[in-house]
Amino acid sequence: MIILIKKESRQEQIERLIEWLQKHQLNVHVSEGMLQTILGLVGDTSRLDIDLVRSMEIVEDVKRIQEPFKSANRKFHPENTVVAAGGAVIGDGSLTLIAGPCSVESEEQICMIAKSVKASGATMLRGGAFKPRTSPYSFQGLGDDGIRMLLTAKQETGLPIVTEIMDLSQLHLFDDVDVIQVGARNMQNFTLLKELGHQRKPILLKRGLSSTMEELLMSAEYIMAGGNEQVILCERGIRTFENYTRNTLDLSAVPMLKQLSHLPVVVDPSHSTGMSRLVRPMSLAAVGAGVDGLIIEVHNDPANALCDGPQSLTQEAFEEVARAVQLVYDAVKAGKEVRQ
Amino acid sequence: MIILIKKESRQEQIERLIEWLQKHQLNVHVSEGMLQTILGLVGDTSRLDIDLVRSMEIVEDVKRIQEPFKSANRKFHPENTVVAAGGAVIGDGSLTLIAGPCSVESEEQICMIAKSVKASGATMLRGGAFKPRTSPYSFQGLGDDGIRMLLTAKQETGLPIVTEIMDLSQLHLFDDVDVIQVGARNMQNFTLLKELGHQRKPILLKRGLSSTMEELLMSAEYIMAGGNEQVILCERGIRTFENYTRNTLDLSAVPMLKQLSHLPVVVDPSHSTGMSRLVRPMSLAAVGAGVDGLIIEVHNDPANALCDGPQSLTQEAFEEVARAVQLVYDAVKAGKEVRQ
Amino acid sequence: MIILIKKESRQEQIERLIEWLQKHQLNVHVSEGMLQTILGLVGDTSRLDIDLVRSMEIVEDVKRIQEPFKSANRKFHPENTVVAAGGAVIGDGSLTLIAGPCSVESEEQICMIAKSVKASGATMLRGGAFKPRTSPYSFQGLGDDGIRMLLTAKQETGLPIVTEIMDLSQLHLFDDVDVIQVGARNMQNFTLLKELGHQRKPILLKRGLSSTMEELLMSAEYIMAGGNEQVILCERGIRTFENYTRNTLDLSAVPMLKQLSHLPVVVDPSHSTGMSRLVRPMSLAAVGAGVDGLIIEVHNDPANALCDGPQSLTQEAFEEVARAVQLVYDAVKAGKEVRQ
Amino acid sequence: MIILIKKESRQEQIERLIEWLQKHQLNVHVSEGMLQTILGLVGDTSRLDIDLVRSMEIVEDVKRIQEPFKSANRKFHPENTVVAAGGAVIGDGSLTLIAGPCSVESEEQICMIAKSVKASGATMLRGGAFKPRTSPYSFQGLGDDGIRMLLTAKQETGLPIVTEIMDLSQLHLFDDVDVIQVGARNMQNFTLLKELGHQRKPILLKRGLSSTMEELLMSAEYIMAGGNEQVILCERGIRTFENYTRNTLDLSAVPMLKQLSHLPVVVDPSHSTGMSRLVRPMSLAAVGAGVDGLIIEVHNDPANALCDGPQSLTQEAFEEVARAVQLVYDAVKAGKEVRQ
Repeated sequence: MIILIKKESRQEQIERLIEWLQKHQLNVHVSEGMLQTILGLVGDTSRLDIDLVRSMEIVEDVKRIQEPFKSANRKFHPENTVVAAGGAVIGDGSLTLIAGPCSVESEEQICMIAKSVKASGATMLRGGAFKPRTSPYSFQGLGDDGIRMLLTAKQETGLPIVTEIMDLSQLHLFDDVDVIQVGARNMQNFTLLKELGHQRKPILLKRGLSSTMEELLMSAEYIMAGGNEQVILCERGIRTFENYTRNTLDLSAVPMLKQLSHLPVVVDPSHSTGMSRLVRPMSLAAVGAGVDGLIIEVHNDPANALCDGPQSLTQEAFEEVARAVQLVYDAVKAGKEVRQ
Repeated sequence: MIILIKKESRQEQIERLIEWLQKHQLNVHVSEGMLQTILGLVGDTSRLDIDLVRSMEIVEDVKRIQEPFKSANRKFHPENTVVAAGGAVIGDGSLTLIAGPCSVESEEQICMIAKSVKASGATMLRGGAFKPRTSPYSFQGLGDDGIRMLLTAKQETGLPIVTEIMDLSQLHLFDDVDVIQVGARNMQNFTLLKELGHQRKPILLKRGLSSTMEELLMSAEYIMAGGNEQVILCERGIRTFENYTRNTLDLSAVPMLKQLSHLPVVVDPSHSTGMSRLVRPMSLAAVGAGVDGLIIEVHNDPANALCDGPQSLTQEAFEEVARAVQLVYDAVKAGKEVRQ
Repeated sequence: MIILIKKESRQEQIERLIEWLQKHQLNVHVSEGMLQTILGLVGDTSRLDIDLVRSMEIVEDVKRIQEPFKSANRKFHPENTVVAAGGAVIGDGSLTLIAGPCSVESEEQICMIAKSVKASGATMLRGGAFKPRTSPYSFQGLGDDGIRMLLTAKQETGLPIVTEIMDLSQLHLFDDVDVIQVGARNMQNFTLLKELGHQRKPILLKRGLSSTMEELLMSAEYIMAGGNEQVILCERGIRTFENYTRNTLDLSAVPMLKQLSHLPVVVDPSHSTGMSRLVRPMSLAAVGAGVDGLIIEVHNDPANALCDGPQSLTQEAFEEVARAVQLVYDAVKAGKEVRQ
Repeated sequence: MIILIKKESRQEQIERLIEWLQKHQLNVHVSEGMLQTILGLVGDTSRLDIDLVRSMEIVEDVKRIQEPFKSANRKFHPENTVVAAGGAVIGDGSLTLIAGPCSVESEEQICMIAKSVKASGATMLRGGAFKPRTSPYSFQGLGDDGIRMLLTAKQETGLPIVTEIMDLSQLHLFDDVDVIQVGARNMQNFTLLKELGHQRKPILLKRGLSSTMEELLMSAEYIMAGGNEQVILCERGIRTFENYTRNTLDLSAVPMLKQLSHLPVVVDPSHSTGMSRLVRPMSLAAVGAGVDGLIIEVHNDPANALCDGPQSLTQEAFEEVARAVQLVYDAVKAGKEVRQ
């Protein structure tokens, strides 16, 4: 970390600041330029409150050199983290497919889809029981009934399940859930993240609609600081000015996050674009970008279409996508081997 | 609401959709163009799930004509809502000043600042007890102790208090708090909003960092749908590509929100820019834009500066700002009278 | 196009507007709802000035239903446009590689890179002679000398060349250039676009840093309206709040643009991320997304590294990327065939 | 400027870099931390190509400490620049009103509006002759006829005129124009900016739709580097995700730009919001923020309304706004005097 000192500061003020920094176990290199005194800090600055330093009277600006996340940082943990949930595994170099409906609607629906996506190659089942909706007048999900139905589908198929928590008060319902999903709108619900840090099961953490990668990793850090290191990062589209697509899927986040962090990265191609026609190309693109898994919405009977999401694939379309992504995955792998 | 039907749709499909819409108490006008059939809906569409309609097989697109918010909509409630909290009032045409420190640090600190800002014209006291922080390693606030200190300051000065709730589990601590603040990161914490809808005290709802005005009003709608109509909207800066300022204060949101809604609108000039030097000009600008109140960070002893936020004014600077905004407020009012 | 009439409008005003619209060869369907009169327009609205209509006194809002671009629209031209330039072809279903240095630095440099990228599979040579630079103090390119060097490299290798025009006054220098590139900052330089519409050679049109896909297609429309239908669209990253990457490569634009338009789409993975480490994964991702070509920066001697762009690959790295993208391209194609 | 050296770099590489930097008249302070070697540069780094440095093999990152603009920088030119054009003045501490129609439509129209806005207090006349339009099918302005009409209006009223140039080829038509406007889309048309640097008349430079303040100041720097120091900066709204307003007027840019630079700053409240109802509150807000002038669209006969912009005021409304902004301007000034 580098601290730029204001020109007009007195020597005693600078010395007081240096003492204070040294108390935080930091070595301070002083560099006095013609225009400005600069302090270079050496040591673990991740526990230093950068806003606090920036607010000090004699400080003009603070430039971070090291990333503020530590447990999630690949620099301090070079090996990939492999997350295991039920029989499924994410981050071991294979491509994990997580599939299922937007919302759980009935036991019959979720079990039928679970069997179907399993047959197509999915190794985890997703489905929403608690649904965050912009409008209070929209369907809010089946709640605990939805979770019970997911557990039935798990029993029938053996697929571990991923479902979203919306509030701490729901946590007791997630005892038998394999992976707890934190939605984009809750990515900075710090009270929730802290409590999930005390759980001992994987957390699928979706990137907030307008969160930077650094903020995503800092939210992962909240969970990991509590002792739970099983965090899966999920890119699901960010908010931009473009409006032909609902959000802009930021696929450069995939190699970037994998470079910055050792945590596995999955992509949700369904929510990001909001259009089922784009799920296939964006799934293939995500695999090209080096993703560890895909989380894809699949719905049941399209003839009875009233509740299908505009971003959901039919089961047949999912089967095709599953096959196509595997072909691309193999090609990406073959390309890597040529390199070595 | 206007529904564009896909070209290739069959007549019976269109008729099924029309029947379904009519069951929702909507009149449907069919307009058959050369390129496209269009359905125009007349009636209360605010309770219709637009995503559901958009997802239907034969629907190409849905264009909303009426706003999706209803209780918050000025069209259905032309008079300004006036919110009363303790002795203070927001939205009655006067300019309300809410001031106080970023975080409550001690009883002494909060009481001293409370007295000082009251003397300068503030009619409400703000102060953070629970602090949402990007890093798990940063100071997280004094929690329930902080709330107790705020209540002491309230007792000593008579100023009603505004403070932020971060999670439903903290709600019991807010019994004597006058206005509950929902922070930008929680603007779409729908579980929290629903519960606040059952409270009978004012909610200060901050706009999310990347939330549209429509989403802000839909979040107000969540609270109002529960029966609590005392919502204060707060613009506090949105996330853009610009990085000389921390966020971009969207002052056009002020007249726009007041046109769309009857709820009072306040501006937070401290958090939006992240620079104390900009608090004064942005406060004056907000008054020019027609705001109902300002919520401003004020800190205590600048000599003992380690914990001052970079966005906080000293008490002396706040006094000056309070005087300057009053002058501008009077001028804006005089300008209005000339008009009539 | 749908026109929402303000509630308080008088009947004669509405009738005057309808007459005016009919003079523009449009049929007008009037739908009188309880809250609002709505006019539905049938006919070719692409030549109607939507801002003009929106500004009319009695108009509350205008909602477009058809896209405002016409020549570029796939609806009116379902077949893919194939652009031929020198011996190279873009948009015929194959994957076209365009490669070369950021800036032309010397005849030796450009000829060496040209031979190298040709050997690796590139079929077009890129290189900047006129460089748009944010700072007036940065290197601005070799200008007409640079173009002459590119032409030498073309002669030596047979590769057609792509290079950027910055101003109309440079047009005479582009007589022997095969493809004229319009940079992101000039995407809405309408005077330039109009003149390029009178040329009879392909234009590679880069998406502006904050331009929507619709604006990109409208800029293509400017060129096509002049009679030049050989436009190649190029996605090169958009400006967002994220700053770990220089820009955010919007790969969902690839399938979206190909759905909206018949024009070929290429991706520039070098400029978008600003990091050479991300060129490979983003190239593979672009191929997964269905791109017609890639335009990649390649530099020469890395030992003598002072002028290498941070986003450039070495010639060896380019060779590997070229091989890897071909493998992924074949897999994407195989996946398509399985589908049929 | 601070250069972070990659960990694995060899000592001789670092020494070569230091030598190279010293040749650029820079002093280099070397700070060797445990994790990283850091070079601190002292001297004039504004002429150093930061992209070039960042691209060097051994460089991990470069952090700028000084701003990259020099002629526009208040640090090197503490006094406000006052721009004089015809009889009008901008930046001398008074509030300058520039008003006129979006497009010049006829001699009669422009002369009538010119007289009217002069009577209301405007000291400069604006009007578009060349109009940048997103669609090739929209009205593109009257061109040189428009300029002639503006000159007639100037002669009749004595008001100096401001009008937009779209391309260098039009420059000869601007001989008698008092202030040349560079539109948002041309803010980074560097060929144009360079040529305007050789002119000896004021340039009104509009901020690009998605340009940072730093980029705006770098574009001013292009003009100033050519010897023309009479640049007026204009904030006119930036592109964000919000879509109730056309753009988001960034009023925090006003005090920020005035702090960073000595150049005068004006605000265009008409184009930014795209709604005439917001012109008044945003004008008052801009004055609160400390602007040097306002550039406001005013139209003529509202009864004959077909060509009025949705963002234009009538002449009566402009008169009211002119009076109201003066009241607020006086109040802001009175507030400043209290302070001293």
